[in-house]
Amino acid sequence: MTYCVAISVDQGLVFVSDSRTNSGVDNVSTYSKMRSFGVPGERQFVICAAGNLATTQSVFLQLERDIAGNAPQNLMNLTGVADAASYLGRVSVEQQRETPGGPVFEASFLIGGEVAGSTRSRSFMVYPEGNHIASGPQTPFLQIGEIKYGKPILDRVVSADTSLEDATVCALLSMDATTRSNVSVGPPIEVRAYHSGTLQPPRYVSFGDDSPYLHELRRAWTHELHAALRRLPAVGWNEAATAREL
Amino acid sequence: MTYCVAISVDQGLVFVSDSRTNSGVDNVSTYSKMRSFGVPGERQFVICAAGNLATTQSVFLQLERDIAGNAPQNLMNLTGVADAASYLGRVSVEQQRETPGGPVFEASFLIGGEVAGSTRSRSFMVYPEGNHIASGPQTPFLQIGEIKYGKPILDRVVSADTSLEDATVCALLSMDATTRSNVSVGPPIEVRAYHSGTLQPPRYVSFGDDSPYLHELRRAWTHELHAALRRLPAVGWNEAATAREL
Repeated sequence: MTYCVAISVDQGLVFVSDSRTNSGVDNVSTYSKMRSFGVPGERQFVICAAGNLATTQSVFLQLERDIAGNAPQNLMNLTGVADAASYLGRVSVEQQRETPGGPVFEASFLIGGEVAGSTRSRSFMVYPEGNHIASGPQTPFLQIGEIKYGKPILDRVVSADTSLEDATVCALLSMDATTRSNVSVGPPIEVRAYHSGTLQPPRYVSFGDDSPYLHELRRAWTHELHAALRRLPAVGWNEAATAREL
Repeated sequence: MTYCVAISVDQGLVFVSDSRTNSGVDNVSTYSKMRSFGVPGERQFVICAAGNLATTQSVFLQLERDIAGNAPQNLMNLTGVADAASYLGRVSVEQQRETPGGPVFEASFLIGGEVAGSTRSRSFMVYPEGNHIASGPQTPFLQIGEIKYGKPILDRVVSADTSLEDATVCALLSMDATTRSNVSVGPPIEVRAYHSGTLQPPRYVSFGDDSPYLHELRRAWTHELHAALRRLPAVGWNEAATAREL
């Protein structure tokens, strides 16, 4: 399994992905699921992948081959992030279909970034079928993989005016909720944060299993939740609607 | 879909269930999924149900018939909660098998309570196959239905020494996270809290769609989360493990 999240705020984009892969319960490995592509001052892209590992690796390889071979469409000549998402969807479907012997091994992707002269930074989710949806003001985050455990914190906290730093912490809390509940999602946890308008490579960090920062974040968050719980309104046992039992 | 949670703490038991049923996306109805059975001073049980509505209704009906007919095994003569869970599992499997024309329509249950002269209050989850597992000090909560969205808050906050009141608020936050993300889980939200050792009927409340308490709880919680986020440690961008990109 996998969990990746992309948050789009006014200040920029945050991507967080886990690095655990598994086939069943015992073929457990570690692979990065996030790549960064770009030319400083001209274009920056971050891509996260979920799904069949053979497919996602083939897709990343093909993206690099298209760049190296200066293909008619590649990440270095597309004129916007939406075009890059369409291109990524096409490459993904092609790679899924090229599996010699089997059924289709599906993959999904998050792609975000910015291209000079285009609109501001944007992010997209690319479905296994190759089509895509964009983040928006009402939907400032996109998720792929094991999405449910990490969704409530994003729902409650993230909006377009959340700072890039707060969005990054929030994405890490979302990831931490997921790794805690699903053992097939695990560290290293990779993070990239792109400042909108800079066209410079995103800031990067990878947190390992024994990360002091993640440990401290988890401890502080649990402490804060306990303290917050004590400040909430007492249960409304006497609310009017309670008069009649269902 | 359904979401029900039972929390077992030293002070007692909390049960929270939603009341929405649906078949596909448009056959949406409201049914209580929680029942309380008991004799003050002697025994108290709370049961929550998830799964096929025809099955869960048949099961509740059979439990009541067994009590009314003073069956050899019924909720009023069993000597402990574990026995009650085994009995509930048997009734559930029987009702599933009695569907005249179809496949097996599965159901799961949470059952908790206390019987005079038995051990302290306990809770169990009953699987569709009729067997069951108990809550424990390391696993103070049990969930059925759409369990993922509401699990992280329970994981981070609930332990055996959590007060019954805090556990109730926590269960409501867990439910609120779920109703927000899955439209097939919805109000009225029923709550029962049983104080261990009292053998008195649990405290009851039902919060409707327009509940002022739930509205205020949601508002206060969102406010607290935003405030908590600002107090967390800044992202550890320079952590040592970051030196080498994956």
